[in-house]
Amino acid sequence: MLILKLSCPDQHGIVAKIASYIASHNGNLLEFNQFTNTLDSKFFARVEIDTSSLDVELASFIAGFAVLGESLKAQWHFREAPFKLRTAILVTKTTHCLNEILWRVSENDLPLEITSIIGNRAHCKTIADKEGIPFHHVEMDGELKNTGFEHIAKILRDEHVQLGILARFMQILPNWFCEEFSGKLINIHHSFLPAFIGANPYRQAYNRGVKLIGATCHYVTSDLDAGPIIEQEVKRVLHSHSPQDLMRLGRDCERIALARGIRYHAYDRTIIDGNRAIVFED
Amino acid sequence: MLILKLSCPDQHGIVAKIASYIASHNGNLLEFNQFTNTLDSKFFARVEIDTSSLDVELASFIAGFAVLGESLKAQWHFREAPFKLRTAILVTKTTHCLNEILWRVSENDLPLEITSIIGNRAHCKTIADKEGIPFHHVEMDGELKNTGFEHIAKILRDEHVQLGILARFMQILPNWFCEEFSGKLINIHHSFLPAFIGANPYRQAYNRGVKLIGATCHYVTSDLDAGPIIEQEVKRVLHSHSPQDLMRLGRDCERIALARGIRYHAYDRTIIDGNRAIVFED
Amino acid sequence: MLILKLSCPDQHGIVAKIASYIASHNGNLLEFNQFTNTLDSKFFARVEIDTSSLDVELASFIAGFAVLGESLKAQWHFREAPFKLRTAILVTKTTHCLNEILWRVSENDLPLEITSIIGNRAHCKTIADKEGIPFHHVEMDGELKNTGFEHIAKILRDEHVQLGILARFMQILPNWFCEEFSGKLINIHHSFLPAFIGANPYRQAYNRGVKLIGATCHYVTSDLDAGPIIEQEVKRVLHSHSPQDLMRLGRDCERIALARGIRYHAYDRTIIDGNRAIVFED
Amino acid sequence: MLILKLSCPDQHGIVAKIASYIASHNGNLLEFNQFTNTLDSKFFARVEIDTSSLDVELASFIAGFAVLGESLKAQWHFREAPFKLRTAILVTKTTHCLNEILWRVSENDLPLEITSIIGNRAHCKTIADKEGIPFHHVEMDGELKNTGFEHIAKILRDEHVQLGILARFMQILPNWFCEEFSGKLINIHHSFLPAFIGANPYRQAYNRGVKLIGATCHYVTSDLDAGPIIEQEVKRVLHSHSPQDLMRLGRDCERIALARGIRYHAYDRTIIDGNRAIVFED
Repeated sequence: MLILKLSCPDQHGIVAKIASYIASHNGNLLEFNQFTNTLDSKFFARVEIDTSSLDVELASFIAGFAVLGESLKAQWHFREAPFKLRTAILVTKTTHCLNEILWRVSENDLPLEITSIIGNRAHCKTIADKEGIPFHHVEMDGELKNTGFEHIAKILRDEHVQLGILARFMQILPNWFCEEFSGKLINIHHSFLPAFIGANPYRQAYNRGVKLIGATCHYVTSDLDAGPIIEQEVKRVLHSHSPQDLMRLGRDCERIALARGIRYHAYDRTIIDGNRAIVFED
Repeated sequence: MLILKLSCPDQHGIVAKIASYIASHNGNLLEFNQFTNTLDSKFFARVEIDTSSLDVELASFIAGFAVLGESLKAQWHFREAPFKLRTAILVTKTTHCLNEILWRVSENDLPLEITSIIGNRAHCKTIADKEGIPFHHVEMDGELKNTGFEHIAKILRDEHVQLGILARFMQILPNWFCEEFSGKLINIHHSFLPAFIGANPYRQAYNRGVKLIGATCHYVTSDLDAGPIIEQEVKRVLHSHSPQDLMRLGRDCERIALARGIRYHAYDRTIIDGNRAIVFED
Repeated sequence: MLILKLSCPDQHGIVAKIASYIASHNGNLLEFNQFTNTLDSKFFARVEIDTSSLDVELASFIAGFAVLGESLKAQWHFREAPFKLRTAILVTKTTHCLNEILWRVSENDLPLEITSIIGNRAHCKTIADKEGIPFHHVEMDGELKNTGFEHIAKILRDEHVQLGILARFMQILPNWFCEEFSGKLINIHHSFLPAFIGANPYRQAYNRGVKLIGATCHYVTSDLDAGPIIEQEVKRVLHSHSPQDLMRLGRDCERIALARGIRYHAYDRTIIDGNRAIVFED
Repeated sequence: MLILKLSCPDQHGIVAKIASYIASHNGNLLEFNQFTNTLDSKFFARVEIDTSSLDVELASFIAGFAVLGESLKAQWHFREAPFKLRTAILVTKTTHCLNEILWRVSENDLPLEITSIIGNRAHCKTIADKEGIPFHHVEMDGELKNTGFEHIAKILRDEHVQLGILARFMQILPNWFCEEFSGKLINIHHSFLPAFIGANPYRQAYNRGVKLIGATCHYVTSDLDAGPIIEQEVKRVLHSHSPQDLMRLGRDCERIALARGIRYHAYDRTIIDGNRAIVFED
């Protein structure tokens, strides 16, 4: 099975051209998702192709698409399934998001191969050890911040990491880091963005007396907490919930929003479009 | 704008053929929704086509599709937008579903033209009068049931009704009626089907102590409460809610599920597939 | 039936004292809701009392409570049920919130008597006329703003209005107005506050690419959009929804959040505590 | 801190009597939840008492309550906090519910001490070993069923288990077992009961074409799938979801409903009332 992700300026006949190319080589469309943004005339698509009866080699099929892709002035990407994305998980102290990811990987809910867990604190080492996953403790307090991020970047490069998950990693990323790994870093923010940007969102939510709290899974950009949103989740709360209760309830939002966001990304169901994310849900 | 709805046995190249036909006449795809049921090899699609730059007359474009449609062994249907479905609303006493529909029609949320309101009780006549909509009071108690349904069928035929909405119409429909108007009758059932089939579902829900109640919008078939489900809605309830409270809270579920179900149907976003409904959500 | 609402500094024995007072006069507790905020040692309660077997006159029972209330340094309030709050609805052009309120009043979902509808535009006059409710068209564009609000204040005073509902009333209220009717004005804001404060929240939500939109029902204070939140509602949205779609979907959030917020207020289920609202849900 | 749970026939003055008893010994009410079922005149309450300034020994305070409890013809129960319920988890093959419980115990979300994990298959032994929890593999296929349940009962007795969690334990329990551990067994059923009772509920849900699936956490009674419901959770599904997708999505419903249900039970927030459960949510 092959997944094709494509975006290009809108024009007549795109679907016909893509579908015809696939059909002409005896591929079978399993799922075709398309979105035309009429506000700015952009076209986005995600296609699942059954390649079991292709009349050419898979590599030739993929290479041959370039002629069409270029004529459409498109950006496109093929991924052969099944696959596992090489993934590093960045953590600080809290374990709930880490645990959620590890559990879903073990259930085959998420097509990831966890190459390592990276922590600026040592708290999650026990979990890594239990699961037999390498753990890198990277000191980055105070003056060590820059060298810490250089260290992490080296790990990501050395391990050929395709996806970095910030699973409640409590560090502000430097711009160069965001840019080097642009589109490959997913964060979970513990509020319903854009509400309660910044520190201590559950305390802010308590003080404001909101009736729903939330969590936001988004791509990381150098503009803190403003990256394209992949998924959000909310939960009803009561006046009787203390800030600690909100944190407890919020953990469930975070786990759910992060897990779904990773899944959408891993299965190529997301296309970044400026500061928005197109998400073809499943 | 033209909406095409199509279902056929699955086979290679369907999307390519449909999209190529449209592109070959200079139509532009605005939205393409497709679903392949791999369990029984059926293909379903809904297509929105911008026809402003077609190179043939619309009628020719539609007629010309027949060659392709037949070769695919498809069932298909075109609808030109904007349009208004000629719609009758069947009611008994309660007004909340009726009110919801009338309000949404007035807001242009639902593309309906209400031809008349039909009641086996006179309770809703006041509302019909206020809105300037004809009201038919059809007596159908006891022995009058059969003649009552014959009367209603005559009204639906005479008014060229395309859609009949059972907005809490508390009568069991005879088979012949379900069959004559098959696919054209939408009901709102006041429970989360298939739970609590039958009379007094809110009382049943109270007795069972459920923590969520719901409502189900479905196509009417001769098998009572078993027609294809279009939409469902639920709401959390507490032990402290009496059966009357459940009725009150349930009304909101009913209004929402019915309004969304009608919208999906009216915009041709539903395809009936046996006792299931394919619903391309918007 | 009598509703008692009370708040006071926390101290030992409050519940015992209140419940004993009621029992000593042969009242029966139907519902007792209590919340102790341990962060700032405040006590809040709402009590429903069956007064059918009271051993004194209702007026004496209420008057006699003052001794206890004062000893607790409490603020308290009794309301005899059934009752109807004299209510004015303030509108501009859009009708969905107005319609929702009128429908719920007619269903006895909301214990309100609508004294009048006040509009700074004439759009809603048709609805008012249909329902036989007085409509005041108050011009308040540009220079007329101040005199407009004075006019509205006079109407509220003359009609002995106990509750003013801003049902998508698109005007910023002057401080003096907020203060004169403090605790008696409920607004529906068309976003999930505190996100997207200010103009055009649905456009802001589209631009930010959020995956959920919402609405917030809150008490009006002179600090715009920062009043105590009574209720919030959210709804999932997709990348394919245009700003117009968000407005359409948002209307449902607004109707639901506003209706529930009004209900909580009308049945004395809310207690304002600084910029938060205690809400004893039903 | 002390938790009191009480139910009795409704009568005047119950709250006053209970609260006065507590106040008379200088206890402080932290939380008072009460529900009067007017349909059958029953009174239910849950009280949290700060006992730090009691003027008697805790044991005396508890013992002394008996006079009042008996005069009210009540059933009541005190629990001193903090506490940990001795809990056994019964499993078959699937791990998601087990993992969820273990994770929440480690986060102090659930006040449980897991005494052992009991499996009629060996699949979950790895997890038990990792966490250092004893694992009992009890064979119970075919003829071994009765001796298997006797074995389990012995384990529960020997380990002084206060709560048994059926975390997707795929065995029908014999009546004697349900009765011996009545009120101490919590099950998670993988459907929105009472819909889809019996085998393969996700397949049933697929066939019926429902738009929401769910899970139900309930007390176990000898009447299969009919025990008092503690919590339910639902999730929206699409026509494109296969039965396997429904299982995957359903797992999240199961984890959430089970975790919340256990929490309510463990903190004495539930009172069984016939085949309904009163649940004072937090």
